[in-house]
Amino acid sequence: MPELDLPPLPSPAEIQVGLHWLDLLGVGAFAMSGALLGVRKRFDLFGVIVLGCVTAVGGGAIRDTLTGQTPPLFLRDETYLWVALFGAALAFSFGERLARFERAMSVFDTVGLGLFAASGALGAIKIGLGPLGVVFAGMLSGVGGGIVRDLIANEVPEVMYRREQLYATAAAAGAGIVWLLHTRQAQWHLGTLEIQLLGAATVMLLRWISRRGWVKLPVRRLPEG
Amino acid sequence: MPELDLPPLPSPAEIQVGLHWLDLLGVGAFAMSGALLGVRKRFDLFGVIVLGCVTAVGGGAIRDTLTGQTPPLFLRDETYLWVALFGAALAFSFGERLARFERAMSVFDTVGLGLFAASGALGAIKIGLGPLGVVFAGMLSGVGGGIVRDLIANEVPEVMYRREQLYATAAAAGAGIVWLLHTRQAQWHLGTLEIQLLGAATVMLLRWISRRGWVKLPVRRLPEG
Amino acid sequence: MPELDLPPLPSPAEIQVGLHWLDLLGVGAFAMSGALLGVRKRFDLFGVIVLGCVTAVGGGAIRDTLTGQTPPLFLRDETYLWVALFGAALAFSFGERLARFERAMSVFDTVGLGLFAASGALGAIKIGLGPLGVVFAGMLSGVGGGIVRDLIANEVPEVMYRREQLYATAAAAGAGIVWLLHTRQAQWHLGTLEIQLLGAATVMLLRWISRRGWVKLPVRRLPEG
Repeated sequence: MPELDLPPLPSPAEIQVGLHWLDLLGVGAFAMSGALLGVRKRFDLFGVIVLGCVTAVGGGAIRDTLTGQTPPLFLRDETYLWVALFGAALAFSFGERLARFERAMSVFDTVGLGLFAASGALGAIKIGLGPLGVVFAGMLSGVGGGIVRDLIANEVPEVMYRREQLYATAAAAGAGIVWLLHTRQAQWHLGTLEIQLLGAATVMLLRWISRRGWVKLPVRRLPEG
Repeated sequence: MPELDLPPLPSPAEIQVGLHWLDLLGVGAFAMSGALLGVRKRFDLFGVIVLGCVTAVGGGAIRDTLTGQTPPLFLRDETYLWVALFGAALAFSFGERLARFERAMSVFDTVGLGLFAASGALGAIKIGLGPLGVVFAGMLSGVGGGIVRDLIANEVPEVMYRREQLYATAAAAGAGIVWLLHTRQAQWHLGTLEIQLLGAATVMLLRWISRRGWVKLPVRRLPEG
Repeated sequence: MPELDLPPLPSPAEIQVGLHWLDLLGVGAFAMSGALLGVRKRFDLFGVIVLGCVTAVGGGAIRDTLTGQTPPLFLRDETYLWVALFGAALAFSFGERLARFERAMSVFDTVGLGLFAASGALGAIKIGLGPLGVVFAGMLSGVGGGIVRDLIANEVPEVMYRREQLYATAAAAGAGIVWLLHTRQAQWHLGTLEIQLLGAATVMLLRWISRRGWVKLPVRRLPEG
């Protein structure tokens, strides 16, 4: 009944392609965040690029190694490294001037976090892990790149004490949603694609809520602190 | 001849179950040590829990990755993560007040160190490594979690300069004993279980001896130090 | 026509043996560099030896894990660990007095860097990676041990800001040459051995050029720096 003049919904294949592009945007944002830290730490051109690439592909590498899929995706599909390289080179060229686009980059970063966490969780489900393993693997896939970035830059990983904002917690929650939806997959007629999108959307929603300052994580008071 | 009224010796299956419980106690102690460091470093709730979990499962993850058994055991058997989660949550709730139980925790820690080192060594033997590889893999399985904990907390790994006490050295010695016993396995009618127990006991004995201050590791004097 | 009195060229098998020896020299040099850093950091005997061994085998372990060859070579061939152990023990015994041989050690280090980068690149080609993956894997194989060394010693990895000298860049270039030669393999009648040697030679040449101060990597100026 094509009498209505609505634009057609995207097909699953189109969504898949769209997801891949979003994934690459996330990789680029991660690469820029790593490269900018390298610039601030006075690394040379090479160090900046390596730090950018490692930040960009670290999460996926952890996901693939934990779930036994070697070589990791970023080595099998060269696009990831090219995008990471490009993002890092951009950050080196523009340096602090990129800070002007912080808002846009933070959006990409959230997109990357959500997609990585969801794909990590799906990978863990595929190899038969239980709920806790799925949440752990999804969370590590999302925040792994940032942790490696901070370790190399010799700083305490930011995600560990980012108390004003949910970050890794959002990734863990998104991975948990992926697991929940997966257990209802047959009942609710959900495809893998829908599950990944819903998981990633959960992460983004939580990030948005916590940016408004509505939720905070507790910190243990120390007697002398 | 059941005329004597002695309690029966535990069967291998019972010992196996006991070992599993000891293993879990070790995991819990490692989780608490990681979580307490996180509390001291002012990590938020999430950071404390992640640091606790990573400390608890890090050694086993290294053992399984090095010996090619992916996904690692802690992802296949959810009990480990649940225990780690519980230990970390406990440490977050009680904070410094847990220090009162330091003695008990240190016993669990030693049990974990011994069992992890012995199981790491056995895993290495199973895939056909030689003596040095067995010692290396066993040692890393024992101390890997602590090293990852200290790296994330941005400190020099404690095991590297814990000169007053044998720690990693004890783990290496226990792994070496496992290798030695394995070469005599047929002759001495030893089962895998006995070997693991004897290896772990070696580690605990060495820890106990070094706590008394009877053995110390040398430190290289520097001209200016 | 054996009328000339020239010594015969080495056979491929002889070159292979020679390569293995050079490889071990590189492992020894890496072990000493790690152990010396441990001595300076006041690690105890055990810490010094572990840091030496990890530096020596880290690059190869990364190469084998990324390309899915577990257990890594250093666990399958015990020679590597024995040499690393010996190098680390030497560094502990002689301490700063080894600095006198810095020039010789730096030559071995360069040999190790070149051979590791080339063998990492060849391993990546064997499992079918593309150009960027080959360069990345080769580079990480060359510098991975040093990065792990600096992370454990709680320092920013030296390769990241070694701007006066090409180091990781040289490793990346050598890996790139390996990839280029591999694409011309059939045309130019090159064996794997020749390719590895030419790749390693590229690394060494670049190191030599940059030591003369002829090439430097740019560092991004900061507004306030």
